[in-house]
Amino acid sequence: MRTSIATVSLSGSLTEKLTAAARAGFDGVEIFENDLLASPLTPEEIRVRCADLGLSIDLYQPMRDIEAVSAEVFEGNLRRARHKFELMARLGCDTVLVCSSVHPLAEDDDALAADHLRQLAAQAQEFGIRVAYEALAWGRHVSTYDHAWRIVAAADHPALGTCLDSFHILARGSDPKGIEDIPGEKIFFLQLADAPLMAMDVLQWSRHYRCFPGQGGFDVAGLVRHVIDAGYDGPLSLEVFNDVFRQSEAGPTAVDAHRSLLMLQEAAGIAALPERVVPTGVAFAELVTPDAEPVGALLGALGFARTARHRSKPVDLWSQGEARVLVNTGPAARRDGTQLAAIGLESPDPAGAARRAEALLAPVLPRRRAAEDAPLDAVAAPDGTELFFCATDRPELPSWTGDFRPVAHPGAAGHVRRVDHLALTQPWHQFDEAALFHRTVLGLHARDSVDVADPYGLFRSRPVTSEDGGVRIALSVGPAPTDTTTRAQHIALATDDVVAAARAFRAAGGRLLAVPANYYDDLAARFEFVEGELESYRELGILYDRDPDGEFRHCYTETVGRVFFELVQRDGGYKGYGAQNAPVRLAAQHAQRPLR
Amino acid sequence: MRTSIATVSLSGSLTEKLTAAARAGFDGVEIFENDLLASPLTPEEIRVRCADLGLSIDLYQPMRDIEAVSAEVFEGNLRRARHKFELMARLGCDTVLVCSSVHPLAEDDDALAADHLRQLAAQAQEFGIRVAYEALAWGRHVSTYDHAWRIVAAADHPALGTCLDSFHILARGSDPKGIEDIPGEKIFFLQLADAPLMAMDVLQWSRHYRCFPGQGGFDVAGLVRHVIDAGYDGPLSLEVFNDVFRQSEAGPTAVDAHRSLLMLQEAAGIAALPERVVPTGVAFAELVTPDAEPVGALLGALGFARTARHRSKPVDLWSQGEARVLVNTGPAARRDGTQLAAIGLESPDPAGAARRAEALLAPVLPRRRAAEDAPLDAVAAPDGTELFFCATDRPELPSWTGDFRPVAHPGAAGHVRRVDHLALTQPWHQFDEAALFHRTVLGLHARDSVDVADPYGLFRSRPVTSEDGGVRIALSVGPAPTDTTTRAQHIALATDDVVAAARAFRAAGGRLLAVPANYYDDLAARFEFVEGELESYRELGILYDRDPDGEFRHCYTETVGRVFFELVQRDGGYKGYGAQNAPVRLAAQHAQRPLR
Repeated sequence: MRTSIATVSLSGSLTEKLTAAARAGFDGVEIFENDLLASPLTPEEIRVRCADLGLSIDLYQPMRDIEAVSAEVFEGNLRRARHKFELMARLGCDTVLVCSSVHPLAEDDDALAADHLRQLAAQAQEFGIRVAYEALAWGRHVSTYDHAWRIVAAADHPALGTCLDSFHILARGSDPKGIEDIPGEKIFFLQLADAPLMAMDVLQWSRHYRCFPGQGGFDVAGLVRHVIDAGYDGPLSLEVFNDVFRQSEAGPTAVDAHRSLLMLQEAAGIAALPERVVPTGVAFAELVTPDAEPVGALLGALGFARTARHRSKPVDLWSQGEARVLVNTGPAARRDGTQLAAIGLESPDPAGAARRAEALLAPVLPRRRAAEDAPLDAVAAPDGTELFFCATDRPELPSWTGDFRPVAHPGAAGHVRRVDHLALTQPWHQFDEAALFHRTVLGLHARDSVDVADPYGLFRSRPVTSEDGGVRIALSVGPAPTDTTTRAQHIALATDDVVAAARAFRAAGGRLLAVPANYYDDLAARFEFVEGELESYRELGILYDRDPDGEFRHCYTETVGRVFFELVQRDGGYKGYGAQNAPVRLAAQHAQRPLR
Repeated sequence: MRTSIATVSLSGSLTEKLTAAARAGFDGVEIFENDLLASPLTPEEIRVRCADLGLSIDLYQPMRDIEAVSAEVFEGNLRRARHKFELMARLGCDTVLVCSSVHPLAEDDDALAADHLRQLAAQAQEFGIRVAYEALAWGRHVSTYDHAWRIVAAADHPALGTCLDSFHILARGSDPKGIEDIPGEKIFFLQLADAPLMAMDVLQWSRHYRCFPGQGGFDVAGLVRHVIDAGYDGPLSLEVFNDVFRQSEAGPTAVDAHRSLLMLQEAAGIAALPERVVPTGVAFAELVTPDAEPVGALLGALGFARTARHRSKPVDLWSQGEARVLVNTGPAARRDGTQLAAIGLESPDPAGAARRAEALLAPVLPRRRAAEDAPLDAVAAPDGTELFFCATDRPELPSWTGDFRPVAHPGAAGHVRRVDHLALTQPWHQFDEAALFHRTVLGLHARDSVDVADPYGLFRSRPVTSEDGGVRIALSVGPAPTDTTTRAQHIALATDDVVAAARAFRAAGGRLLAVPANYYDDLAARFEFVEGELESYRELGILYDRDPDGEFRHCYTETVGRVFFELVQRDGGYKGYGAQNAPVRLAAQHAQRPLR
């Protein structure tokens, strides 16, 4: 179906918004009135600009509080409407949105509302314009879609139809099934927005917290299905008021917006995408660093061995059990210090996974590879992390390890078995999108978001995981857009014996994060431990947590650049990531290396 | 009364929090458990640190979900409590907070709850500790203060009392009058927090939006009055969970916190402050600039004349009607470009105004003046703006103008009569405090906050004004902590004829902000104007607004440094600031001088 976006959903000048919408692949726009008023372009110039960009102007929304008012006020409203219809003719837009009145003097009189809307539609028709009447969730007398439709039906004018808005319908808890009772040709427009489920004033909720479909808690796809079944064939149009999107760059936001409509169409069964290919594990984590020495020392102390070197690039492969870490000292590495730049995801069908990611507008990365290298399909996640879809030593597919030449090494005899999870701080403006991206592009499950108290502000953390936990990525976001204290990333390594692993790390010269004694006094109060157990934790800086399914023991290395490692022992089906311990860990990290 | 603050209300490490609380003048602290667990200091060291800082440790809050559980679970709870009582003995803290249980398995059995609390209190007593039981607003079975008190009364143990928390009581809409029925000696503790009035889930409201008394919408002072009348004589203790304060510097936040308790005590009639002295007008606005030329050119075109020069400093006085602008090119001016650095407030009692400000912890500014200068009482507002309390040419008081030597000048013959208002962007972390400061230190009224859509994010704007509008300051805040696009400041100048003023400005070579033609097409749709009126507005870039009381016409100059001027014609009792026009104005300013 055609896709459209209201300019209010994006930041910047009207020109910036239109450019971003077109580049992201939208077919049309709704022009928000303030964006037009504030633009130095005339309506004719806006029309030409949109045409040049391949955008239709699908809706204009210049009028409020039109209907069910006194005759004198309505006369003024018609006068105002005529001005706006003239403007729309210049703009080349043929559908006007009229929201149900919120005016304190609006009368509770459906017949009067119908009469006024009929008159408005008759005037609109002179300009070749259609009027789409929509129930605001907080409309004074008309606040449900079925009520708005009854008034439209009673008015019975060919230039009058209804506009449906998923936020207004779902925020009120209306049953969208009834949409199918509206003739499709009388649904003039469909506006879409999702929202997190919040118990709050619906007006504030609508104005500040709307988000793109799939980012929130509403069943927007289910609603769209009903609208399609009613026979609607107009555009799917996003109208999202969101305090964060207003601040973020229009370009990436528009791409996220368009991606959400692609996924929505898949979920609603309107359009197909390449099938989901869920990764089964972490093939490797790639660190880029200007100086391989400190990272190498850390990996060595953790029990990794440098087992291979890339045939054509300055990249070392460090291995231990099924955990593999690439250390890349190539030119791209020299800019921002040591960081986690890429993740290799073990994929049942690497090419298929890349096809789906590409169809979902994930930037496909240039394949900088030598002729003899294995093909690597890679895309960029919203935070810029490169995601490689790959196969490791599987006979039926070329293996990325084939690009590496083994080097002589002492056998790795550490306690690490595999990567337990990766933790990545997300750009502040794209936290919700990050979860949606990993959910729909990679087919992971997004778990509940939790608040974590850092000494200098509240983090949010949200894990995305595969069903069996083979892939676990903890996405987090700091308290403010530019908080440089929060850009840490880490690689958590699974072990069956964290005490032994920690001791071995320390014996090899590694330094573990020191945890305050008070923490262990609290553990002693909360849990009972076997003789000596707590003493080991205290000595090594091991943190402990328990949930109904099992136990979690973990400790942290020092930080190199933006990266540190965690050693993790997960027993008996423990599901979490030790969030309970995060405030203590974060405070200890601040104390270790003051960041402000 | 003694004042206290929970460490969770401030950012940083425990040491940073304690230092900030002591410097701001608090007598004691509540130690939040995570702050202790994350601290490398032992309980004994914390005790010594607090003693050194002159802080008592008034409360510790280590236990949840204690009462009305199965016998087996309760046994574990008692064991846990013993650990915590031992810790408290080391810490030197004699009151423990126990919140009503939120555990899903807690039983709805007041007698059982009373029995468990009695046992807990008996154990506490062995350590010389008192148990203060508090109803959480979302407690599973106990969620009101009177219910908690009934259980405490039934338990009837000398080491068991109740803790009252203004948030939990007022968020539930309970009538605080009933507090007077509780014997004062059984009120073991009083926690205070305000909050903005919001229709939202009470747990989220409590955890993210609490604020200091006076910053929100609750009658915290009224509640405190009831608690005092009941006979309570313990500390007034702030417990504020706030996402913004968690990110802001602990030092200024602690000062804001302590100021709020001073004002609360005044409002509750517990303690007196020097009387409020409300300013009657703006004596001057002072711009600091590294280069007087562009500012002088702008002032000259606006019809100001350079009428005097300071006797001992590089400061010029520009005058027109009752509007006076100082242009300071002294050394302090060289750092940050042109900005509005100080405001002279015409005060009925400058010394008294300064005394009140000082009593309310406003930083008193050093009086850098020559021996012959008039005394100037000045303090710093939360945004760093210097506020001078002064008298202008009043016989009974020394006038600041006496420090200036008149210079020859052509008579000012412009259209400006006085300063209409000043608009100042506030530090993101202190917006709520800015309103409270102006309200209580200066005795201004804080009006409702409005949202204003800038192309790159949502602003909030909140005017503070004197009763008759003699002083009007529009406080605003940008969408994010470090948004450098939003640091603009402006001086709005009142005229009786904005068209004439704008024409004169332009004739004198001034450049007005260009307003898009689309804006005027919209004005034509919304209002009817007399012949030629709209054309003048269009020609000059004059914006128009109307409210039930009157009309508002305004236009803007170009920006110099961070500062621009507005010409304002306010007719017939119009109360606002043209907020309706702000998105168009902001977009035009971005277009004029792209800021990113």
